[in-house]
Parts: sequence; C-alpha cells; structure tokens
Amino acid sequence: MNGKSENPSDGGRDGPVPKAVVSRLSLYLRELQHLVRDGHETTSSTQLGNVLGFTDAQVRKDLAYFGQFGYPGIGYRCEELIQAIKQILGTNQPWPVAMIGAGNLGRALLRYKGFVQQGFRIVAVFDNDPDKAGQEIEGRAVEPLERLAEVVREQGIRLAILAVPAPAAQEVADMLVEAGIDGLLNFAPVTIALPGTVSTVGVDLAIELEQLAFAVVNRKKSS
Amino acid sequence: MNGKSENPSDGGRDGPVPKAVVSRLSLYLRELQHLVRDGHETTSSTQLGNVLGFTDAQVRKDLAYFGQFGYPGIGYRCEELIQAIKQILGTNQPWPVAMIGAGNLGRALLRYKGFVQQGFRIVAVFDNDPDKAGQEIEGRAVEPLERLAEVVREQGIRLAILAVPAPAAQEVADMLVEAGIDGLLNFAPVTIALPGTVSTVGVDLAIELEQLAFAVVNRKKSS
Repeated sequence: MNGKSENPSDGGRDGPVPKAVVSRLSLYLRELQHLVRDGHETTSSTQLGNVLGFTDAQVRKDLAYFGQFGYPGIGYRCEELIQAIKQILGTNQPWPVAMIGAGNLGRALLRYKGFVQQGFRIVAVFDNDPDKAGQEIEGRAVEPLERLAEVVREQGIRLAILAVPAPAAQEVADMLVEAGIDGLLNFAPVTIALPGTVSTVGVDLAIELEQLAFAVVNRKKSS
Repeated sequence: MNGKSENPSDGGRDGPVPKAVVSRLSLYLRELQHLVRDGHETTSSTQLGNVLGFTDAQVRKDLAYFGQFGYPGIGYRCEELIQAIKQILGTNQPWPVAMIGAGNLGRALLRYKGFVQQGFRIVAVFDNDPDKAGQEIEGRAVEPLERLAEVVREQGIRLAILAVPAPAAQEVADMLVEAGIDGLLNFAPVTIALPGTVSTVGVDLAIELEQLAFAVVNRKKSS
C-alpha cells in the first residue's frame, strides 16, 4: 500500500535513509543558517517547518532518522543542529572539487558563492580547449584534461562538476572515473553511465521551470 | 502521525497536489521522453519506477492524482502519457521567458538546450550594464532594464529567470513584479520577498553538491 520513496524500508541506493529526507536536510540546514545570520539562537520544528512549507511532524520525523536534537522547553539550538546536519551530510569537512569545462556555465559556477559557503571549494579547472588551458579564471589556472588524474591525486579531489557540452559528457565522465573521482555533479542534459562505485547527481534545470509553470498555471486557475 | 508533505491533505501553497508529486511528474516526463527517443511505445509503472528508484505503487499513486492513464495488459502509452503530463504541468503550450542578467550564468542558460526541449523559449534578455545593452547573445539583443515592462507586455512573457548578482536580486525582482511577471526562477543565492500573486522557485546549486557528498560518504561507509 505504501509505496512512497519516503518509506525507510524502500531500500534506496544510498542506504536506508530515503533520498527525500536527505534533500530536506539541505533545506533545514539552509534555513538554520538564515536564522543564525538573523540573530536567532534557537528554533522549533514548527518555525522551521512553517518557512519551508512542511508540518512540524515532518521536520521531527526527518531529524529522528539521525538522532535526538531538540531540548524540552527550548527546541533546537540552531548552531548545534547546523553542525549535526553538516556532519550527517558530510559537509563538516571541506570538499575540494574539480570543475570540468571552462565555458560560460563553468565560469558562472566558479563565481557561485553558494558552493564555498557550504564547504565546497573548486580547486582545479579543466578544459580540453587548448586556447583555454593556461588561462586564469577566478584565480585558478585552467589545466588540460590530460592532467586530470595527476591533479585529482595530488589535491585529494573526490567530487567533480561536469559543465561540458552534452556530446562530450560521457567521455569526460569516463576520464573522471578513471582518475578516481567518487562523485559527479552533472549539468549536461544527458544521462551518463557510471560504474556502481561512483555516485552521480544530475542537475536538470528545466525541471525547475516546469515546476514554476505548474505553480503559475494552478495559481491562475484558483484565482 | 502522518506529517509527510506527500500527504494530499497537507494543503501545500500551490493547491491540493503535493509539491513532491509535481516534481516527480517532471522526472516521469523526462524518462518517458527518453523511452520514446529509444523507440519504446509503451511502458509500465514498474519500468518507469525502476529507472528512477521509485516503487511501481509510487508511480501509480502519483499519476492517480490526475486521472487514469494506464491500459490493462498494455501499461502506459508513452506519447499519450507525455502529452497528459505536459498538460498537467502547463508545458503543452510554449512559454516565452525573459532572462535577466547577461553575465556568465545568463549566457550559459541562454545556451542550455534543456529549456527549449521542454517548451521554454528565452525570447528577451535584459542587463543593467550599459556595455552589455545592445550586444547580441545567442541571437538575442540585450535590452536595458528600462524596457522590461514594455517587452514583457509586447511578448506576453509570464516567466522570468533571475541570473543577477545577489545584491541586485530583490530590486530586479520588484521590477519584474511591477512589469506583470507571474513566475520567477531565482538563481541568486538569496531569498526574495514577493507578493502572493507571483510564484517563485529558487535554485540552490549547493544543495545538489550536498546530496552528492552525502551519497559519497555513505557509499564509502558501507563498502
């Protein structure tokens, strides 16, 4: 009867915790960071849920997968819960990241402040265009793809962002796997085949526009 | 007890259908489009679920929010289900979109093939940099922000993509609301205050890297 992906027994590929719960952890983390920035020291499941459009029960249930974080009569201590969620996500340690592709998207992502704020530092940039190799972008020298394995090893890089044109994506992904990368964030609008030892997250930007279209169409209907 | 955002009674802001269900519709749509491209005419909830990591019950339950789409002994007709989902999402009609910001991110998004494939055509580009206004990018002349209201009206634009630096985001969003935009896709890593009549979807690219970090850390733990 219950076939929700939120069901802890559904055996998602990343272990027993449902992906939807993990993705909500990121939302809780971001909201807690906003609260701290605005001077709040504590919060509640109701407050946290309200801003994000979830019920307080949902918030408590999600966090209960990982432990007991609230205090009776106090709620959650923001800084403490931030540290706990970062530890769960693995972002309590800095992650050196490789960027593959120094085109417009790669350049935009190199400037994107949100990555550094969350502990992701792009330490190396690669491009197969000989005109780009040697250029400096945002303080990082663009390296030829031939140096990938060497730099990944030297810098202990485990995550890579793929910002190359779709036709090149699989070939570059294979090189990244060969170089020993553990995880791949793919911006190319194609599905990439990877061995089971490498994690991948695909970013499909059109999905966000579709969700926006749905919201607009349904808002109009009900007004 | 059940505080899941997937619960149809939880009264999400966009009406009775939970946001999580709507976001899964996009995933089903994309997979169906892949199936058609690969020559498949029909599919099943099991096949559709398998590829995406959901149970067949989840797929059936999600689609049941919107109607009855399967045929006994056949399953789903791919093309028919694609058209049905597009109608639900509102993407069975083309959406003219305005891009605000002609920096690296704006340029990358103008080249992003995924938008056009799903019916979103960026018809106008705006930037407040006088050096950029008048330039042509991907066949579109960059307009000054002063022309926003006029162009939005002329071209019947209802959606806008905000690809401006964070400090400028709120001011530009206010101009878009003033110009009559119904929906805003925000890439700036800040929360934007909008009137209740305008829908917004924020894209936080660090969330995807966090999810990848979690997958990598937990894969390593279990191996």
